[in-house]
Amino acid sequence: MGHRVAVVGAGTWGTTIASLTAANHPTVLWARRKDVADEITTAHTNDTYLPGLALPAALTATPSLADALGGVDVVVLAVPSHGFRAVLEEAAPFVADGVPLVSLTKGLEAETHRRMTEVAADVLPGHACGVLTGPNLAREIAEGQPAGAVLAFADETVAVSLQPVFAAPHLRVYTNTDVVGAEIAGVVKNVIAIAAGMVEGMGFGDNTKATVITRGLAELARLGHALGGEAATFAGLAGLGDLVATCASSQSRNHRVGVELGRGGRLDDIVGSMPTVAEGVRSSSAVVELARQYGVQMPIAEQVDAVCHRGATLDEARQALLQRRAGSERA
Amino acid sequence: MGHRVAVVGAGTWGTTIASLTAANHPTVLWARRKDVADEITTAHTNDTYLPGLALPAALTATPSLADALGGVDVVVLAVPSHGFRAVLEEAAPFVADGVPLVSLTKGLEAETHRRMTEVAADVLPGHACGVLTGPNLAREIAEGQPAGAVLAFADETVAVSLQPVFAAPHLRVYTNTDVVGAEIAGVVKNVIAIAAGMVEGMGFGDNTKATVITRGLAELARLGHALGGEAATFAGLAGLGDLVATCASSQSRNHRVGVELGRGGRLDDIVGSMPTVAEGVRSSSAVVELARQYGVQMPIAEQVDAVCHRGATLDEARQALLQRRAGSERA
Repeated sequence: MGHRVAVVGAGTWGTTIASLTAANHPTVLWARRKDVADEITTAHTNDTYLPGLALPAALTATPSLADALGGVDVVVLAVPSHGFRAVLEEAAPFVADGVPLVSLTKGLEAETHRRMTEVAADVLPGHACGVLTGPNLAREIAEGQPAGAVLAFADETVAVSLQPVFAAPHLRVYTNTDVVGAEIAGVVKNVIAIAAGMVEGMGFGDNTKATVITRGLAELARLGHALGGEAATFAGLAGLGDLVATCASSQSRNHRVGVELGRGGRLDDIVGSMPTVAEGVRSSSAVVELARQYGVQMPIAEQVDAVCHRGATLDEARQALLQRRAGSERA
Repeated sequence: MGHRVAVVGAGTWGTTIASLTAANHPTVLWARRKDVADEITTAHTNDTYLPGLALPAALTATPSLADALGGVDVVVLAVPSHGFRAVLEEAAPFVADGVPLVSLTKGLEAETHRRMTEVAADVLPGHACGVLTGPNLAREIAEGQPAGAVLAFADETVAVSLQPVFAAPHLRVYTNTDVVGAEIAGVVKNVIAIAAGMVEGMGFGDNTKATVITRGLAELARLGHALGGEAATFAGLAGLGDLVATCASSQSRNHRVGVELGRGGRLDDIVGSMPTVAEGVRSSSAVVELARQYGVQMPIAEQVDAVCHRGATLDEARQALLQRRAGSERA
């Protein structure tokens, strides 16, 4: 097929995915900063976000949305949640009718609690909009480590048609029709990864962390189910897989924020020292508010939100979690 | 309540659990070796299996099954699967009618493929028999790290009555009625932990390992479901929780065997260098045979069995796993 691909956003993950699609189809990467775009096109590196990695020679970048989006037939969105709507509004005039949109962003819009595909549907109604997600730490994918991903569109024929755009010898792309489930899983796992990092930073071991991951996945599935997602999605690569990879990896920004919080660091200092966005910090409040709205219990996410945004101490968070009474596991 | 507890088996986990129950109720630990029993009773240590840890002064041990089992009203079984039936047959004459049995052993009987509670029912029919399981790396529990466990009996009133025997300020014990699910989860997670260790030993990263854990949990759930277990058990502490803790920890023998295999070590050398048993090595064959018998696909367990017992190379195992075609995630 003659796909032409635009990837909007030249951060770590956007650049990684653009490198993959460039091996399959002509790909243009949009970078807000002209110096980053020029470096990608001429030096084939992106030293701000993927230091030390050689990008494909065929991959070009531009700071012009018009140039990036002209003539493409699939648009990949890789901008942080807090800039997602604004960038999409800038991009909208250049997106041709019927072009499918693929979101890579794992956050909620803070003001509206909307998922990124819902924001995209607001700005560009009538376009098929899905997500690519899974246990995909960017650097490992960029280095060619074997992994699996999930491409979710409500209309399976769209997912099947786009599968070859993202597939690589080391990346198996599975299709799924549960966009809500795949998207909520990606949002909530970042919040739970902060909690897992916190217990690690406080000096607890693998039993405790595994318990946070297990109960955290249950929270993720409860919220996802309330919003219309499916159990199999949460148990699969988009839910469990992504959660486990994120909670294990020192490459995950959300996990790292949690570890530093657990060691007693201040959130502003931690976030200020990172070049990239830890989506779970911001999402934790929106997740907790959504959970309240839908009557879903999310005690772990609540404590992440409390520590990040409501002045709770680590001791208060730990006590809130450990003092819950153990009865039946199903209760 | 006036419980008196016998723990049969003074390995790492049996000794750890006996230390917990000794804080709640009079507890006697049976050790096959007289020197180990004497060391526990007089020096309050078990340097072979829990080096450097002080055991409770109230905990006594004996090499006599008659002495260990006389007058107790709960028996905890913590012997490896390959000795389980023989030890239970020796113990049977001393176990009073109606005393519940709690298995801590996460393996299958090699010849019969039977679960430990099935073996116990063969040898001691008419006794309530359940399991205590979950993400419980022995050393962390012994050190007082917070964790959760699952106590499963078909009759919930038995589990509820025994909950206070095992509970501790740092160990939350949840009840469950799904004995089959809890037991199969414990068996299969040891096999999957070997696979996760193998990919780690081969140099792959957290995405790959998370994918093995995710697809491995799906195998675990498929076999468990075929045998009559429940989905919620596999998604809970006994399934996901134990799997994640085991796959993360350098303390897990099964995980360590996998890492050494992945680095190219020979199974006999690896197993020979360990003082304790890695149940997953032996169980992998029984699990694969059970899966065939019930028509369940378990490609990861098959490759563990092939590498451990059928002369397959790491390259063959990797290719068998990575060459499967990616379609819908549900297929």
